[in-house]
Amino acid sequence: MSSPKRLAQLLSAHNTRPLFDSLEAFLFDCDGVIWKGDKLIHGVPQTLDFLRSKGKKLVFVTNNSTKSRRQYAIKFQSLGLSVTEDEIFSSSFAAAMYLKVNNFPQQNKVYVIGGEGIIEELQLAGYTGLGGPEDGEKRVQLKSNFLFEHDKTVGAVVVGLDPDINYYKLQYGTLCIRENPGCLFIATNRDAVGHMTDLQEWPGAGCMVGAMCGSTEKEPIVVGKPSTFMMEFLLKKFQIDTSKMCMVGDRLDTDILFGHNAGCKTLLVLSGVTTQSTLQDPSNNIQPDYYTSKISDILELLGQ
Amino acid sequence: MSSPKRLAQLLSAHNTRPLFDSLEAFLFDCDGVIWKGDKLIHGVPQTLDFLRSKGKKLVFVTNNSTKSRRQYAIKFQSLGLSVTEDEIFSSSFAAAMYLKVNNFPQQNKVYVIGGEGIIEELQLAGYTGLGGPEDGEKRVQLKSNFLFEHDKTVGAVVVGLDPDINYYKLQYGTLCIRENPGCLFIATNRDAVGHMTDLQEWPGAGCMVGAMCGSTEKEPIVVGKPSTFMMEFLLKKFQIDTSKMCMVGDRLDTDILFGHNAGCKTLLVLSGVTTQSTLQDPSNNIQPDYYTSKISDILELLGQ
Repeated sequence: MSSPKRLAQLLSAHNTRPLFDSLEAFLFDCDGVIWKGDKLIHGVPQTLDFLRSKGKKLVFVTNNSTKSRRQYAIKFQSLGLSVTEDEIFSSSFAAAMYLKVNNFPQQNKVYVIGGEGIIEELQLAGYTGLGGPEDGEKRVQLKSNFLFEHDKTVGAVVVGLDPDINYYKLQYGTLCIRENPGCLFIATNRDAVGHMTDLQEWPGAGCMVGAMCGSTEKEPIVVGKPSTFMMEFLLKKFQIDTSKMCMVGDRLDTDILFGHNAGCKTLLVLSGVTTQSTLQDPSNNIQPDYYTSKISDILELLGQ
Repeated sequence: MSSPKRLAQLLSAHNTRPLFDSLEAFLFDCDGVIWKGDKLIHGVPQTLDFLRSKGKKLVFVTNNSTKSRRQYAIKFQSLGLSVTEDEIFSSSFAAAMYLKVNNFPQQNKVYVIGGEGIIEELQLAGYTGLGGPEDGEKRVQLKSNFLFEHDKTVGAVVVGLDPDINYYKLQYGTLCIRENPGCLFIATNRDAVGHMTDLQEWPGAGCMVGAMCGSTEKEPIVVGKPSTFMMEFLLKKFQIDTSKMCMVGDRLDTDILFGHNAGCKTLLVLSGVTTQSTLQDPSNNIQPDYYTSKISDILELLGQ
């Protein structure tokens, strides 16, 4: 028999104040929490301004690897939000930091199945990324006597969301992992699907990572949520006890699980991919501490 | 404690005659057994002629789904081997037969991530295949207000090796499986890699299947080896006890496992992807009954 699940509490006028007072930092997922596609979610600017005015630290933790932190800061600014690069923790940054903290040699190259954001974060960390967008239009020749060559100095393959996925990249990454001794296989994240456009969901990084698992027969090191790898950096940077942090997200299996894994409080918002019926379905084993429809509910419930 | 493994015996002048006399049918894998890429393996024509002259039934069971049985018969002929369509069991044929024996409605469509062989076998079985090669050059537009439409009458997605894999096909197949109620997810096979060219290995159907598992969070029905689905047809057709059949292949995890699962004798040949050291490595848990370097060794060991 499994132990009874502690069910999520709806955020209310009664429980919001004690929660708010106990917290020093808010960790926000972006897509489905701050914005949806290119559209800001209602009440976000006022909520972020209020939290800052009360001295709360704000951190943005996103599994989306298509952008670098610099590119994310530009996106925040374009939506009228003043967020700085060092408040942003993207899985593209996490991939580069994973290599750095593990003393990955700078003379070794990194093959990228994914977007420009990963290439840029690798460069900022002093590494040379191959592949990425520049291999998007490459095609292979499956004919006799053709040998597909790959760089033997590649010591890691980083796989993230890649809408330009093709057989050339899959063969390149597979050869590196199968044939270059000790080559690392790093996944930015394994989200099954995501809102690549505002109207529907599309295959996420979990799709490209699954392809590479299938051809290499290996499992990746995951650096994005729900892995707590990024939490190491957050803790060093902010020196705040995890029990005084609240992870706010729209996904149970990444955001809320990440919060649980890290020992944070957790708040699910229903402004993204998760519905109330999914949350309350008996098959769901991941319960946040609290849930509410959108982050600006905090303002309202505190009487602001 | 696990039970001790019964190690494979090297085929010899001593054990070949009793094995040969006990068998009524030989089931051959093709790639790495009959040919490698477009090159016939040494001694194959004489061996097949000899087996036929002694009244042995020959069956060719391949996981490669890129061709239909008709296209395989043409390949055999082009290499100077007279093999008929009804001696060939490809995973493309198996996918179509799986739908047929499960009374899949003919008015429902089938979306294909894979080659022309699957589309052709579906047509021969009376089904309408969408996708496949004709979606190879299609691209998606990840922009605001763009809605990717899919056919709501698709009731099955068949995934095989697809060197023209792209995000369009992945999104199409993912939408069908996630959104069309009861839509089947069928994999021709899950081979990690294969000799798509004679000089090296390339990602196999396991790569495309892994991608779809990643985005749909579902596991497929596998119809190729090591699944014994095709064995139903073989048994109906040939009325031979499986203990009088020998599965001859170059892969432990598909061919030899298929033979074991079906209750056949098994013979591993070292003319394909498996080396003697892989076979004899302590980490290998799949032992054939016999092994030898290539199928023509049978002739030599019988003194022909």
